[in-house]
Amino acid sequence: MAEAGKLAPVRVTIEPSVDPSAYAFTHDIRVRFVETDAMGIVHHSNYLAYFEESRVAYLRHIGHPFTAWRDEGLESPVLESFVQYRQPLRFDDVLTVHVALAAVARASFQMAYLVAVGTAAHATGVTVHGCTTTEGRPTRLPAWLRKMAP
Amino acid sequence: MAEAGKLAPVRVTIEPSVDPSAYAFTHDIRVRFVETDAMGIVHHSNYLAYFEESRVAYLRHIGHPFTAWRDEGLESPVLESFVQYRQPLRFDDVLTVHVALAAVARASFQMAYLVAVGTAAHATGVTVHGCTTTEGRPTRLPAWLRKMAP
Amino acid sequence: MAEAGKLAPVRVTIEPSVDPSAYAFTHDIRVRFVETDAMGIVHHSNYLAYFEESRVAYLRHIGHPFTAWRDEGLESPVLESFVQYRQPLRFDDVLTVHVALAAVARASFQMAYLVAVGTAAHATGVTVHGCTTTEGRPTRLPAWLRKMAP
Amino acid sequence: MAEAGKLAPVRVTIEPSVDPSAYAFTHDIRVRFVETDAMGIVHHSNYLAYFEESRVAYLRHIGHPFTAWRDEGLESPVLESFVQYRQPLRFDDVLTVHVALAAVARASFQMAYLVAVGTAAHATGVTVHGCTTTEGRPTRLPAWLRKMAP
Repeated sequence: MAEAGKLAPVRVTIEPSVDPSAYAFTHDIRVRFVETDAMGIVHHSNYLAYFEESRVAYLRHIGHPFTAWRDEGLESPVLESFVQYRQPLRFDDVLTVHVALAAVARASFQMAYLVAVGTAAHATGVTVHGCTTTEGRPTRLPAWLRKMAP
Repeated sequence: MAEAGKLAPVRVTIEPSVDPSAYAFTHDIRVRFVETDAMGIVHHSNYLAYFEESRVAYLRHIGHPFTAWRDEGLESPVLESFVQYRQPLRFDDVLTVHVALAAVARASFQMAYLVAVGTAAHATGVTVHGCTTTEGRPTRLPAWLRKMAP
Repeated sequence: MAEAGKLAPVRVTIEPSVDPSAYAFTHDIRVRFVETDAMGIVHHSNYLAYFEESRVAYLRHIGHPFTAWRDEGLESPVLESFVQYRQPLRFDDVLTVHVALAAVARASFQMAYLVAVGTAAHATGVTVHGCTTTEGRPTRLPAWLRKMAP
Repeated sequence: MAEAGKLAPVRVTIEPSVDPSAYAFTHDIRVRFVETDAMGIVHHSNYLAYFEESRVAYLRHIGHPFTAWRDEGLESPVLESFVQYRQPLRFDDVLTVHVALAAVARASFQMAYLVAVGTAAHATGVTVHGCTTTEGRPTRLPAWLRKMAP
């Protein structure tokens, strides 16, 4: 079993900040009852949906809505996801997802997220995205995105 | 925005192997239609549910079913999750989730996963778990689990 | 197999109207990518989550938030659900859920829903709810709800 | 608000039986933790996913797997769904979904479901399906399906 646990770096190279001022954009989401589980808290898989909804809102905000990507024949599949669950979220909580474009390479980019309720950090996370045609062939990132590299 | 992306290590210390022989247990799952998305592939959030179903099957297999944890007043909340999406999964695929207990510390443990279809590695991942009472107070891991440290 | 399909009335006694003016309350929801499926449309199971989010918003609006029910030791489990899918919903659609309390009996009530995008009716539905203690014992509806019978 | 609740029949014409012998096919599913909610029971929206998984297993069993439908350019979108929730389901329950093709018309068919744990009926339901091309144009049911009319 040891081989299943070799110490090694992961491709996520970002540690998302717990400081809201490190993020350029925020998006609010109210927790749905369906998102809770029998521990009485939000199931950990839903954070990826919160990140996605917030990423979509961010892309709309900067004038490059994800629907436009898809109209141009591009997808941005998730290559990696990382989440740190710091404090549970509960039904009806209104959470603020802070979003930042944290790294841009030739064929991938990383988004960082901070999930807060008021001033309390409840989770942080990173998603790494590639860029493919709608047929799934990897392709370069759009020029506007490469120019946004922080 | 730079502060949202400080380079730093993450608490996940495991790189999950793509070698099935590194894992002690396997669990098969057939992809549901509801788990696909408009890219025609399994949505990335569902891998956490696949990991969870497989972890539950693993704990049952070693004689410590998760229902018994809960009957003893223990929960094992997910503290971190990490997923590498290597090849898409599609509707009706039968995937094999290879599972290993990859690290055990005093108050947390790490599970490693390899998702394969036949011999092709489609994803790898890690979940880090704590141990709390059902009221959410952190507590030590059960003795049997500490003894299983690889 | 014939016995599996006896013709008989269902307990849902409401046919939800496609006329928005028949509903007293509206709630907007933007379709998440995770809610789509490999047909490129919103998976039919998600409409129940849309109804629930809208029902929760309605109860908050009339001053009886669902969190208050739960604080008083009450749940309102869904006894029946019925959905007519009239036109598909797609990623990023902003849908308006029209909500009405459509029937109230001693121990149950019915909510009616119309899902519209602009003026186009995309779905209608009904949920029938009971009232139980948090231990699951059936109990009478709160007095304020019985008084609201239409 | 009265108009939102006109009494009227629904298009579902089937009352699903609680007698297992009325169904020709069964499929077992173990409840995932992600499917539970903060009431400690399976969230009502997941029954539609259980029905779908079981319908897919039934179609595979009779030699007309849903993947073959899709390869032939056909979809069978859900036009209506109806569920009666009779007893809650809990984490790790192994449920048996009894499935029957309950009615077949020219352009639609109805499937009936009984969800049981052991001999206890936990839910019943019906889904009504149409038949469309993958572009969404309504079309006749496949001949083999019309011949199966009960």
